[in-house]
Amino acid sequence: MADEAAIGVLTSGGDAPGMNAAIRAVVRTGLQHGRKVIGVQNGYDGLIDGAYRPLGARDVGNILTHGGTMLYTRRSERFLDPRRQVEAVQRARAAGIGTLVIIGGEGSIQGANALAGHGLPVAAIPASIDNDVFGTDLSIGVDTALNTIVGAIDRLRDTASSHNRAFLVETMGRHCGYLALVAGVVCGAELVLVPEQKCGAADVLAAIRNAHDRGKTNAIIIVAEGAQCGIGELMRAIEATDVGLTARASRLGHIQRGGSPSALDRLLASRMGVKAVQALAAGQANVMVGLDGNSVRLVPLAQVIGRKRAPEDELFAMVRTLAL
Amino acid sequence: MADEAAIGVLTSGGDAPGMNAAIRAVVRTGLQHGRKVIGVQNGYDGLIDGAYRPLGARDVGNILTHGGTMLYTRRSERFLDPRRQVEAVQRARAAGIGTLVIIGGEGSIQGANALAGHGLPVAAIPASIDNDVFGTDLSIGVDTALNTIVGAIDRLRDTASSHNRAFLVETMGRHCGYLALVAGVVCGAELVLVPEQKCGAADVLAAIRNAHDRGKTNAIIIVAEGAQCGIGELMRAIEATDVGLTARASRLGHIQRGGSPSALDRLLASRMGVKAVQALAAGQANVMVGLDGNSVRLVPLAQVIGRKRAPEDELFAMVRTLAL
Amino acid sequence: MADEAAIGVLTSGGDAPGMNAAIRAVVRTGLQHGRKVIGVQNGYDGLIDGAYRPLGARDVGNILTHGGTMLYTRRSERFLDPRRQVEAVQRARAAGIGTLVIIGGEGSIQGANALAGHGLPVAAIPASIDNDVFGTDLSIGVDTALNTIVGAIDRLRDTASSHNRAFLVETMGRHCGYLALVAGVVCGAELVLVPEQKCGAADVLAAIRNAHDRGKTNAIIIVAEGAQCGIGELMRAIEATDVGLTARASRLGHIQRGGSPSALDRLLASRMGVKAVQALAAGQANVMVGLDGNSVRLVPLAQVIGRKRAPEDELFAMVRTLAL
Amino acid sequence: MADEAAIGVLTSGGDAPGMNAAIRAVVRTGLQHGRKVIGVQNGYDGLIDGAYRPLGARDVGNILTHGGTMLYTRRSERFLDPRRQVEAVQRARAAGIGTLVIIGGEGSIQGANALAGHGLPVAAIPASIDNDVFGTDLSIGVDTALNTIVGAIDRLRDTASSHNRAFLVETMGRHCGYLALVAGVVCGAELVLVPEQKCGAADVLAAIRNAHDRGKTNAIIIVAEGAQCGIGELMRAIEATDVGLTARASRLGHIQRGGSPSALDRLLASRMGVKAVQALAAGQANVMVGLDGNSVRLVPLAQVIGRKRAPEDELFAMVRTLAL
Repeated sequence: MADEAAIGVLTSGGDAPGMNAAIRAVVRTGLQHGRKVIGVQNGYDGLIDGAYRPLGARDVGNILTHGGTMLYTRRSERFLDPRRQVEAVQRARAAGIGTLVIIGGEGSIQGANALAGHGLPVAAIPASIDNDVFGTDLSIGVDTALNTIVGAIDRLRDTASSHNRAFLVETMGRHCGYLALVAGVVCGAELVLVPEQKCGAADVLAAIRNAHDRGKTNAIIIVAEGAQCGIGELMRAIEATDVGLTARASRLGHIQRGGSPSALDRLLASRMGVKAVQALAAGQANVMVGLDGNSVRLVPLAQVIGRKRAPEDELFAMVRTLAL
Repeated sequence: MADEAAIGVLTSGGDAPGMNAAIRAVVRTGLQHGRKVIGVQNGYDGLIDGAYRPLGARDVGNILTHGGTMLYTRRSERFLDPRRQVEAVQRARAAGIGTLVIIGGEGSIQGANALAGHGLPVAAIPASIDNDVFGTDLSIGVDTALNTIVGAIDRLRDTASSHNRAFLVETMGRHCGYLALVAGVVCGAELVLVPEQKCGAADVLAAIRNAHDRGKTNAIIIVAEGAQCGIGELMRAIEATDVGLTARASRLGHIQRGGSPSALDRLLASRMGVKAVQALAAGQANVMVGLDGNSVRLVPLAQVIGRKRAPEDELFAMVRTLAL
Repeated sequence: MADEAAIGVLTSGGDAPGMNAAIRAVVRTGLQHGRKVIGVQNGYDGLIDGAYRPLGARDVGNILTHGGTMLYTRRSERFLDPRRQVEAVQRARAAGIGTLVIIGGEGSIQGANALAGHGLPVAAIPASIDNDVFGTDLSIGVDTALNTIVGAIDRLRDTASSHNRAFLVETMGRHCGYLALVAGVVCGAELVLVPEQKCGAADVLAAIRNAHDRGKTNAIIIVAEGAQCGIGELMRAIEATDVGLTARASRLGHIQRGGSPSALDRLLASRMGVKAVQALAAGQANVMVGLDGNSVRLVPLAQVIGRKRAPEDELFAMVRTLAL
Repeated sequence: MADEAAIGVLTSGGDAPGMNAAIRAVVRTGLQHGRKVIGVQNGYDGLIDGAYRPLGARDVGNILTHGGTMLYTRRSERFLDPRRQVEAVQRARAAGIGTLVIIGGEGSIQGANALAGHGLPVAAIPASIDNDVFGTDLSIGVDTALNTIVGAIDRLRDTASSHNRAFLVETMGRHCGYLALVAGVVCGAELVLVPEQKCGAADVLAAIRNAHDRGKTNAIIIVAEGAQCGIGELMRAIEATDVGLTARASRLGHIQRGGSPSALDRLLASRMGVKAVQALAAGQANVMVGLDGNSVRLVPLAQVIGRKRAPEDELFAMVRTLAL
């Protein structure tokens, strides 16, 4: 009977702070619905390999405050092969997993959709610090990453303002400039360079000259990982001007993925975890849980797959206005 | 000419992290609209007393990252007198202030409405760590306060779990349990006591016994400032049980009001500051800027005054489920 | 044979951040010396009750970064009875514990001395956020507690300076003013009240008037838990003056005990844990590990017991000078 | 008269958290000795150019908590020329500066010695996050940098343990491995590579295989900036093994220089600032203030110049033991 089948839960793709909070919510809500919950380790690889363990309420105690994921995560090459997907579904069913919650980013949600196609009812929870998942205003991990970036850039500003210096700060975001743009607003950057817009050294020089003319003695330029201009080239261009700023680069890198999740990420992950289990328990499968304004809602996977979330125009305009 | 009149800005009531970010956004957006911006110090007292100073773009440099408010804030007794309100409007007009942005909580927004009644076009920005302002999903300062609470309770949990101890943690919230409820979800509390619900020692004992029976060796109980039961009484009741927990109280107090604002509070404050000035510049006065889902919108002051925002039922249910 | 006997380790008294780092260092250094290491849970109560578990290198993985103590801790009433102490030694020996490392504060070190008197070779490691243990410049937990206090008071300063307010901040320290005095220097307090000095409302009023005359518009007064004047009385005295400051109290409380240990506490705890095991392995028992300047040295327990560490006069003078 | 001459103060070289706390202590202690204090901006360049401003007690209010330096800092090429040094001394004297406090690292202290040689009495305060200044156990900024590194690596560990990953983390330290070594102890690194020791991919592979054989599923390797092996090469070597770890690099970079100073750095800087002024007031010039164990003492500049501080052997051994 479907009602007696266990709920499986796995994390997949790059880790994001709050994944553990989501796992905890899935487990405890599942138990409260009278279901067994089975954790799948190592993402889709573990689903194929049968790396399953039952999870009780105490197993997810004390994980709420921890970054990373207690179930481990991977990007699985093998799972791209549809034969492996079928195998995975069979193995999961054999272990008593009747429905599956997948916590991860864009690629992981595509994987969820593949499983749904092979007949395993799934619910996806978007977790990705890039905030590039379509169908949700916010993914798990974004808020913590932003606060980490804020902490880092506030530190760099100390040094920048002591030295009359321009810092070029690289944030994550290979295809999506959301993180960089919001960071630009909340850290008071002079300019933000994102993958979605063409940019070059001329833009940077104009921003710096402009800042200098308005009396600023230092500058923070935020460059998303996927922006269309090289940091080395930008540094040389800045130092070649006559505004008297030295240039330094800081690549924030993987520290953006870790850390104890922020209040908002813990709340969002908890809400999404509860909602995902409620959906599966009510037979509403093959959906993603999305944040729509202030509400957590279900979105059919079919509406999510293959679409890209782009940052709002409002953010571009705000960076310009507030850098005054 | 209205277009040439300056925009005034003041902060009023209890301080909240992000007020400075809102001031900065008001000043720079105002300047970009070609207006002069005048800062009013000491809240409504300063409006009466003429504590005005012009603010340029550089005057609000480096304040984005600071808690508190560079314009100082107060709860003004004098301003409750309508004659003082009229005086204040006259003085403001004489100083060239044509419109006024007020950043503050419920009482401050009532003050804004009074000014509007005396003919001064105003725009209010909700700032209050209690999140009790009607007409906005979120007020400035709430997210930072929540992260401060998370940091504090994560510390208390270290001690609680080392000692088999129950902590009764008092958060701010005299009339509104929002902060306590969200803190309960994001800190994994066993129980949350709020002003909106009757509660007593029996609830606390049941929660603790329940937690103990499920294998928990410590407990966090969150008590909003205005909850209807005394912490001393609760402590005695806990220690009188046979579950073997000692009880301690921690009143988080004023640390909840301070600190460098979180990424979300900086973003929210910036968006609201921009919107308030855009509204005044467009002649849309006597409004509050509210967050409605993901959008920043204008709400007529008349719809806000005298109404209370209550925490969502979803939060009450989540605390129970996730404490499993 | 003594060489083959296991090393026991326990934590006792109030918890302090860094206790886990010390446990880890004891376990791994013990293993490297070819010894078994046995963890004793619940402090001296567990020693009496036989709450023992062997600890391997992996059992102490990931605890370095956590506050509190994985072995739990208590203040044991029973252990004050010498018959219980003898029982405890017999039980420990029967379990193969040949020597014992005790991590705790003043009372715990007295307990260690009692065990030594009953023939169990011990080494004590001072852990106490009050820094009141004689024979060491610094105890484990002090530095983390200071950074927690700094974080809290930096927040309060935001509010104090926004409101022209005096904050009376109570820190831990029932008998010892060290924590309060250093907090006074590093947070820029106007005055510090400690148990070691007489004080009254007159001192506070003089400091506040003085600060006001020098142009300060807010004040932070730090009051150690054991200071000889009541905070309520001080608040009333401040509000009765004409300098125009409102007064608020903030009792920092138990958050001072928790949190991920600072770099210095992790280093100190690691050094002390290594040294304690080296001492026992070399047959140098019945000692406390103390920090003497930059070196970690052994101090005979007999020299530590019954003596009090007092804060340096230099600190009293510095608070006065730097509050200028 | 010497007694009536002003005390000058400048910061030089790379900025370090706590420089502002030292400036504040110099200013307020100077004023208490009845001296005028003059701030020199932009390091030695400003000394040459006459970028002087008098500093009162209020000018250094609120800087205690800020990273960076309110006096700005630079590495001055011009000042290497002895003719410029003579000019600087003449200009300083003409402005009433009778003695000078220099806050900075190794190169800055050499500059102080040069000024002393030209007849200007100086006192140096060591500030350098690398902790490479000879004659002091600790320089200002080291403790804050270590806590920043701890915060960053604790984040990376979340990701490393979620992915079975090895992180190669580059810390500052071009010539001195102190920061990397202590970071290794306090972050639980598997291995630390420093400029003072030969190292190669073989060491890294041995450490990782060793960790793997002991049951570890992730690894943190800390590499000081000046270590004798390239991170790219190390990464390729790790991924070529069969232990199944992926490798990632994280260069912490300039965030290590910034941030609000830790409690210890504020205390150290305050003590050193007080001592430097006391020395000059007592006619004990041409010294550096050093931390010797628990005491702040004066060291003749002649003993400091041209010597290097090396990390203690104890640290090398501890990394190995505790990585067990």
